[in-house]
Amino acid sequence: MNAEIIAVGSELLLGQITNTNAQFLSHHLAEIGINVYYHTVVGDNHKRLIEVVKEAEKRADLLIFTGGLGPTKDDLTKEAIAEHIGNELEYNEVALKSIEAYFAKVNRTMTENNKKQALVMSGSKVLPNDHGMAPGMLLKANNKQYMLLPGPPKEMQPMFLTYGKNELIQLLEKVERIESRVLRFFGIGESALEVEVEDLLLNQQNPTIAPLAGDGEVTLRITAKHESEEVALQMIQEVEDEILRRVGQYFYGYDQTTIAEELAELLKERNLSIAVAESLTGGLFQSELTAVKGVSAIFKGGIVCYSNDAKKQLVKVKKETIDTYGAVSEQCALELAENTRAIFDSDFSLSFTGVAGPDEMDGQAPGTVWIGLAERFQKTKAYKLNLVGSRAGVRKRSVKYGCHYLLHALNQNE
Amino acid sequence: MNAEIIAVGSELLLGQITNTNAQFLSHHLAEIGINVYYHTVVGDNHKRLIEVVKEAEKRADLLIFTGGLGPTKDDLTKEAIAEHIGNELEYNEVALKSIEAYFAKVNRTMTENNKKQALVMSGSKVLPNDHGMAPGMLLKANNKQYMLLPGPPKEMQPMFLTYGKNELIQLLEKVERIESRVLRFFGIGESALEVEVEDLLLNQQNPTIAPLAGDGEVTLRITAKHESEEVALQMIQEVEDEILRRVGQYFYGYDQTTIAEELAELLKERNLSIAVAESLTGGLFQSELTAVKGVSAIFKGGIVCYSNDAKKQLVKVKKETIDTYGAVSEQCALELAENTRAIFDSDFSLSFTGVAGPDEMDGQAPGTVWIGLAERFQKTKAYKLNLVGSRAGVRKRSVKYGCHYLLHALNQNE
Repeated sequence: MNAEIIAVGSELLLGQITNTNAQFLSHHLAEIGINVYYHTVVGDNHKRLIEVVKEAEKRADLLIFTGGLGPTKDDLTKEAIAEHIGNELEYNEVALKSIEAYFAKVNRTMTENNKKQALVMSGSKVLPNDHGMAPGMLLKANNKQYMLLPGPPKEMQPMFLTYGKNELIQLLEKVERIESRVLRFFGIGESALEVEVEDLLLNQQNPTIAPLAGDGEVTLRITAKHESEEVALQMIQEVEDEILRRVGQYFYGYDQTTIAEELAELLKERNLSIAVAESLTGGLFQSELTAVKGVSAIFKGGIVCYSNDAKKQLVKVKKETIDTYGAVSEQCALELAENTRAIFDSDFSLSFTGVAGPDEMDGQAPGTVWIGLAERFQKTKAYKLNLVGSRAGVRKRSVKYGCHYLLHALNQNE
Repeated sequence: MNAEIIAVGSELLLGQITNTNAQFLSHHLAEIGINVYYHTVVGDNHKRLIEVVKEAEKRADLLIFTGGLGPTKDDLTKEAIAEHIGNELEYNEVALKSIEAYFAKVNRTMTENNKKQALVMSGSKVLPNDHGMAPGMLLKANNKQYMLLPGPPKEMQPMFLTYGKNELIQLLEKVERIESRVLRFFGIGESALEVEVEDLLLNQQNPTIAPLAGDGEVTLRITAKHESEEVALQMIQEVEDEILRRVGQYFYGYDQTTIAEELAELLKERNLSIAVAESLTGGLFQSELTAVKGVSAIFKGGIVCYSNDAKKQLVKVKKETIDTYGAVSEQCALELAENTRAIFDSDFSLSFTGVAGPDEMDGQAPGTVWIGLAERFQKTKAYKLNLVGSRAGVRKRSVKYGCHYLLHALNQNE
C-alpha cells in the first residue's frame, strides 16, 4: 500500500509553522510497512486542494490529509473532498455531544460555527478526537482510502496512534514489519565512510542502508522489511556486523543518542570520574555531560578558564607557558588537563583551548583547537584540530572530539 | 511570481527528519512577495522526481529544490533536472577549488566522489556554499526559473540569505515589501501578556500581531505590508511603541536574539565583568554566554561546582552551610555568588544551585532552584524558583532567569 500525505493550511505555505505532521505520520507508516512516496502541502483553497487530490489519486492508494477540519471558513478539507468524491456530510452525534461538553467544561458559550466540526463524511469510520473538537475520519471510495486528521499535532498525534494506525493495520493484507536502526559515527567524513561500505550501498535492497551527515557526524540507517519482526531484526544485525567490522572504530552509538551521553554512560558504568577545563568551548562540554541524568556520580566538576588569568590563577597554568607558547598550544592544553585532573583528583580530565572564531587569536586561525586528555596513570596527551565552520560549529565539534578521544582511551583501557 | 518548493530526500519520506527548509524558504519568499502555493517532498528517485518537476512546471514560475546535491549516489537532483531540461553538467572551477581547499584544511584525503559536488548546470548562476561543499545554482530554462539549494539547513539557510534571495529580488518587477519584527519577552506568561495587548490583537489588520510562546518566553511578531520599506517599518514602529508602553519591563530584545546574548552585549557595552558558579546548570549558562563573539572582554570565567566537594574546595562554600542548609538553599546560593565574585574579582557574579530532576534531591522537588547574584558594591541577593518541566527545561529556564535578574540589576543601575 502506497500513501501520500497531504497537509492543508496556508500557514504552512507562509512559513509560519513547520509540517511536523508529515514526519510523524511517515515514521509511523514506515513502521507498518506502508510506503510514502510523496508529501504535499497546499493552502486553504478549494480548487488547488482538489487538483492536489486528483494528482495524489493517480499515484497513491491511501491519501492522508492533515488540517482544515476546524470551525472557521478557512477550514475546507472535508467539504472539498466530500464534493470531489460525491459524498454527503452529516452530523455525527458523538462528536456533537463531545463539542458541547467541551464548551460546558471550559465555561464558554459555544458559537454556531463550532457545530461544523461535528460534520463527517457519510459512511466514514469516525476517529474520535480525545484532545480537541474536530473528529477524524477514514473513508473508502473509488478504490482509494481517504484518512482525514486534524492539523494541530497535539490532536493529530494521539488520534493517529490510538485510532488511525490500527484502522490502517486492519486494511493491510499482511503486515510487513519495517524495522530500522541508526548507527552513529564520529571522526570519519561521509564520503570516506561511504568508500568503506560502497559495495554494501550499491547492492542494498532489503535491508537498505542510508547515509546521512550533519554536525560533524555521519549516520547509517539500516532498514529491513519482513513479516516477522524477529527476522527483520536479524537481517539488520547481519548488516550492522559487517559495517562495524569495517568502520567500527568510528562507531559510538545507536539511534537518538549523543556522543556526550555515551561517554557519560560509560564513565558511570565503569565508575570512573572526570573533571574538565574549558576555554573556547566555554562550558559547552560540561553542559552536555550534565544533561545526562545521574552524572553527579562521576562528574567532579570543572573550570571555565576563558581568560588567561583564569588559566593561570585557577588551573595553575605556568605564566611562562602562556608567554612562550600562547594559550592555544599543545603545552597549555597539556597543563590544563594535567592540573585539572590533580585539582579535582579525578580519574580523567579533558581540556579545551582554541580559537572559536570568527576572528583570529594570537595569530592563529579560527578553528585551531587543542584538546588535552589526562589519565591518572598515563602520560597526558594533546590533540590538535583544524576545524572549519561557524563559531557555534567549531565549539560543538570540539566538544564531540573531546568525547571521541576519551571514549577511545576508555575502550583501549578495557 | 509563484513558487513551488520541492524537497528531495528519502529521509524525509521515512520520517527521519522534518522539512524545515520549506518553512524557512516560504517565510523568506513571503517577505519579498513571492507566493508559494505548494510544497512537495519526493524521494531520491529519478523517475518520481521528474514527475514532480513536470507537475510543478504546470503550476509555478519558480521551482526551488532543496537536497540531493551531495557526493553520494543517492544525490541526484541536479543530474535529474539537467537531463529533464536538456542541460549539461560541467565542473565549476571555483567550487572545485573550494572543495579541495576544504579537504586540505581538515587534513583529510579527498575521495573521488566529492568532485561530483562541483558539477553545476551549464549556464546557471552559481550560488557559493560558504558552509559546506556543494554549491547551489539558479538557471532559467523553458521560461521557468530553477533554483537548486543544498539540503542541510546549515548550508542552505546562509546560501539563500546571502545569495539566493537577492537573485530572486532582481527577477521581480515590483516588490510589495513585507517587513516583520519579533519582540521577545521574558518573565511574563503568554496569557498575561495577551491580556495587556488584547485590544491590539483584536483590531489588527496591517500590521498584524502574532503571539507565540515557548521555552519560558513569549514573542510578538509584528508584520506590515507596504510597497515602501520605509512606510512598512514606520507602521511596525508605531505598534511596537504602543506594546512596549504597556509591557516594556518584560521586553529584552528583537528577532533571533537570546536573553544571554542581550546580557553579554550589555556587559560588553558597559565594560562590566562577570564570573559564574554553576551547579544544576552544569556549564549551560557559561556556554550560552560564550556563544557570543568577543565576550572574553567581560567574562572572567567560572566554576562548574557540580559536586559538593567542588562547592567547598573550589568556591570555598563553608562546610557548615551545606551541612545545615543543604546545597540547594538560599545560603549556599549566596555564598557561591559572593565567593565566585571575589575569586575572579569581577563586577558581577551569578550562581545556580538546584534540582534539575527528574528525581528529588535532599528532599527537594525537581525544579527547585536558587540563583545568587553578587555585585561589587551591593548586598548579594538570592532568588528562588519553582520550575515545572523536564530536566532540560528546568536547566534552560534557570539560565534564562539568571540572565533576567542580572539584566534587571544592570537596568536599575543605569
